[in-house]
Amino acid sequence: MKVLITGIDGYSGWALALHLVSRGHEVSGIDNLATRKRVAEVGSHSATPIRTMPERLKAVRKHLGKNIRFRQGDLTDWATVRALIRKEKPDAVVHLGEQRSAPYSMIDVHHAVETQVQNVTSTIHLLYAIKDEVPKAHLVKMGTMGEYGTPNIDIAEGFFEIEYMGRKDRVPYPRQASSFYHWSKIFDSGDVMLANKLWGLAATDVMQGVIYGTRTPEITRDEFLTRFDFDEVWGTALNRFCVQAVLGLPLTPYGKGGQRRGFIALEDSMQSLTLSVENPASAGEYRVFNQFDEAYSVTDLARMVQTIASRKFGLEATIANTYNPRVEAEEHYYNPHHENLLRLGYRHSRTLEASLEEILSDLIRFRSRLEARRHVVMPRMNFRASDNRKPLHIKGKA
Amino acid sequence: MKVLITGIDGYSGWALALHLVSRGHEVSGIDNLATRKRVAEVGSHSATPIRTMPERLKAVRKHLGKNIRFRQGDLTDWATVRALIRKEKPDAVVHLGEQRSAPYSMIDVHHAVETQVQNVTSTIHLLYAIKDEVPKAHLVKMGTMGEYGTPNIDIAEGFFEIEYMGRKDRVPYPRQASSFYHWSKIFDSGDVMLANKLWGLAATDVMQGVIYGTRTPEITRDEFLTRFDFDEVWGTALNRFCVQAVLGLPLTPYGKGGQRRGFIALEDSMQSLTLSVENPASAGEYRVFNQFDEAYSVTDLARMVQTIASRKFGLEATIANTYNPRVEAEEHYYNPHHENLLRLGYRHSRTLEASLEEILSDLIRFRSRLEARRHVVMPRMNFRASDNRKPLHIKGKA
Repeated sequence: MKVLITGIDGYSGWALALHLVSRGHEVSGIDNLATRKRVAEVGSHSATPIRTMPERLKAVRKHLGKNIRFRQGDLTDWATVRALIRKEKPDAVVHLGEQRSAPYSMIDVHHAVETQVQNVTSTIHLLYAIKDEVPKAHLVKMGTMGEYGTPNIDIAEGFFEIEYMGRKDRVPYPRQASSFYHWSKIFDSGDVMLANKLWGLAATDVMQGVIYGTRTPEITRDEFLTRFDFDEVWGTALNRFCVQAVLGLPLTPYGKGGQRRGFIALEDSMQSLTLSVENPASAGEYRVFNQFDEAYSVTDLARMVQTIASRKFGLEATIANTYNPRVEAEEHYYNPHHENLLRLGYRHSRTLEASLEEILSDLIRFRSRLEARRHVVMPRMNFRASDNRKPLHIKGKA
Repeated sequence: MKVLITGIDGYSGWALALHLVSRGHEVSGIDNLATRKRVAEVGSHSATPIRTMPERLKAVRKHLGKNIRFRQGDLTDWATVRALIRKEKPDAVVHLGEQRSAPYSMIDVHHAVETQVQNVTSTIHLLYAIKDEVPKAHLVKMGTMGEYGTPNIDIAEGFFEIEYMGRKDRVPYPRQASSFYHWSKIFDSGDVMLANKLWGLAATDVMQGVIYGTRTPEITRDEFLTRFDFDEVWGTALNRFCVQAVLGLPLTPYGKGGQRRGFIALEDSMQSLTLSVENPASAGEYRVFNQFDEAYSVTDLARMVQTIASRKFGLEATIANTYNPRVEAEEHYYNPHHENLLRLGYRHSRTLEASLEEILSDLIRFRSRLEARRHVVMPRMNFRASDNRKPLHIKGKA
C-alpha cells in the first residue's frame, strides 16, 4: 500500500516508517522538524543521538534497499498539503504531525494558541486534501487516551450506548481534558468525525496510550534510532524515571503518584497502527481504537524502574514524590476498554519489564547525553500559572 | 457593573449593549466589524438599515445620555486583548465576538480554518487576559444548542449523571456537531472548562437557541436598530421565511423540514444574558445554561410565518420544501432541558407569534432592501461539497 506519514521525523513517525517499509509498503512522509526545534527551545535534546532526515533516508536506502520519499514542509500551509496529497495519492494517511506535548501547550498564551491553531489547521487541511484528491483514502489519526480524562466510570472506545431519562442512544463518549494540548486532540477528533459524517471519509481515530521503548525489531542500528525525550516538557513520566535512575537521581512521581494511565510498547503501537493501515475502515466508517495494553499508576512505574534498574544494572534509585505541576486527580478510578484492536488480531507482544531493560541499557550507553542535560528532568513549570517561560528559560513575547 | 461585550457590533451584541446601559451598567465593547464584511462577501446585507458604530454611539449619548466605550480591534491580536482587559477591568465579559455562521464555515477549506482558528484564538486570548488582569471577573461565553446535535435521548444542561457498567458519574454531555462552525463552539466550551479547572475562572457557558426578532424594549428608533440577516449564509430559517413571505416567494424548508431546534426571542435572550451577568457564577464555578424557550420544527416555523403573514398582512405565501444543503437528521427526537435560567428568575416574556408580527412589520418597511437582495435567500451551497465559492460568487484562493 501507499502510506503517507505526517510527522515522519517524530518518535512514532520514524519507527512507523521503518516498520512499514520493512513490510513492503511504499512509504512517504512530511515533517516540519518542529519537535527538534521545540525540544531545543526548552533546553533539552533527545537521549538517543538521532540522525538528520537526509541521513536517515540514506541509511534506509543503504541497509534496507528502500526509498522513502520525504518532504520537509508544514501542514499549516494549504498549498503544501494539497500538492503532497495530489502527488503521493496515498491509500492511507497516518496523521502524526502535531504538537504532542501537554506541558508545551501550557507554557503561556502563545504556546496554547500555537498548539491548538497548528493542530486544528493541519487536520482540516488534510481532511480537505483527502476529500479533493483521494476521497477513498483511509485516514489514521493519532489522538490520545487523555481525551477521555479520568471519569469515575469505565471508559468506552469512542462511543457508548447509554440510557438516559428512559431512552437509549449510542453517543460519543464524553471528553474532558487537562491541557490545551489535550483539548486540541479532542478538537481534531471532532473535525475527523465531521468529515466522516459530511463526506463519508473513512477514518480510524487512535486514542493512543503512553508509549514506552527505544527499540522495535527494525531499530537495529544507531542510524535507525528514533528520538527519546526525557525533559519535563517532552518526556513521559516513565522516560524521566529511567533517566533519573541512570543519573543516580531520585525518581520523582508528581504529587501522590496515583495517576493511572494506559501504556503500550513502541513496537506494539507500531503493530497496532499497521493493523489499522492494513485493515482499513470501510467507506463511510469512523472507528475509534483505544490503543494501549496495561494501565499503571505513576507510582507503579517508579517502582518497576527502581526494581529493574537495581536488579539488572545495579543502579540503586530512591523514590521521592515531588510537587505536581499539573492539575489532575492523583487518585482515581481508571478502567478504559480496549477490544477493537484485539478483534483485528492485535496481540500484546512486549511487556513493560522487558522494554525497561532495553531502555535502561540504551540510556546507559548514551549517559553522557543525559549528564549534559540533567537539569531538565525536574519540574519547573506549573499548569496553574499563565506564564511558564521564566522557569523554563524561554525568551518570549507574552 | 462594568461589562465588556466582545462582538458589540453584532445582532446580539448591540441589543445587549442597549439593554445593559439602560439598566445602568457601565458598558464597553470591542468589535472587528467582521460580520459586516463577511455578509458583504456573500453578496448580502442586513434587512434593517444599521448605523455605523460611531453613529450608534452618538445616538446612545444623545437619546440615552450614556457613554459606551468602543474599541475597533481584533480578538486574535493578543496585545489588543490584554490592553483592553487591563484598561477596562470589567466585572463581567460577555463574549459574543466570534464567527457565528455554520454555512460560512462550510464555504471551503479556508473558511473552515478561519472560523476555527479565529474563534479558538479569541477565546484563549480572553481566558489568559482575564486570568492575568481580572482573575475574579465572570466570563459569559456564547455557545450554541447546536453543540449537542440531535441525539435520541434528552439533552441535559451541559452535564449529566449517568450510570455505565454499574458505576455512576456526572460527566459533560456528549457533543456532536454538524459544521466546522459548530465544532468551533464546542472547542471554545472545552477551553473555558479547562480555564475553570486550572485557574478557577468563573464562567457561564450559554448554549444559545436560535434567536428571533428585530426589536427589544430599547430598540425604539431606527438609530438603535440591530442587524437582521436573511441570506442563506447568515440568516436563520425563520428570518428567511419572513423575507420570502414579504417578497411573495414560497417559503422553503430544507429537506423534510422535521429538523427541530430551540428558539428564543431577542428580548428574552437579552433578559437571560443580563440574568447571567447580574447573578454571576461563583469563584471556581463553571455553569451551563440551555438558553431557549420553545422547540419548533422548520415546518412549524414555515406554517406560523404563513399564517401570520396572511392573517395580519394579507401576504399569501406557499410552502415549497427545497433540497437540503446541510447534512442533518430531518426527522428526529428533540427534548433539551432548560431549568437553570428559570432558577435565576427567568420568565418567557415574548412569544414567537408576537415577534413574527413585529418582524414582518419591520421587513415590510424595509422591503426595498430585501428586493435588492432577493437572490440571496435560496440555498446555493452544499455542505457535502468542499468548495462552495462558485455558487456563492466568492472569489477565493482555494
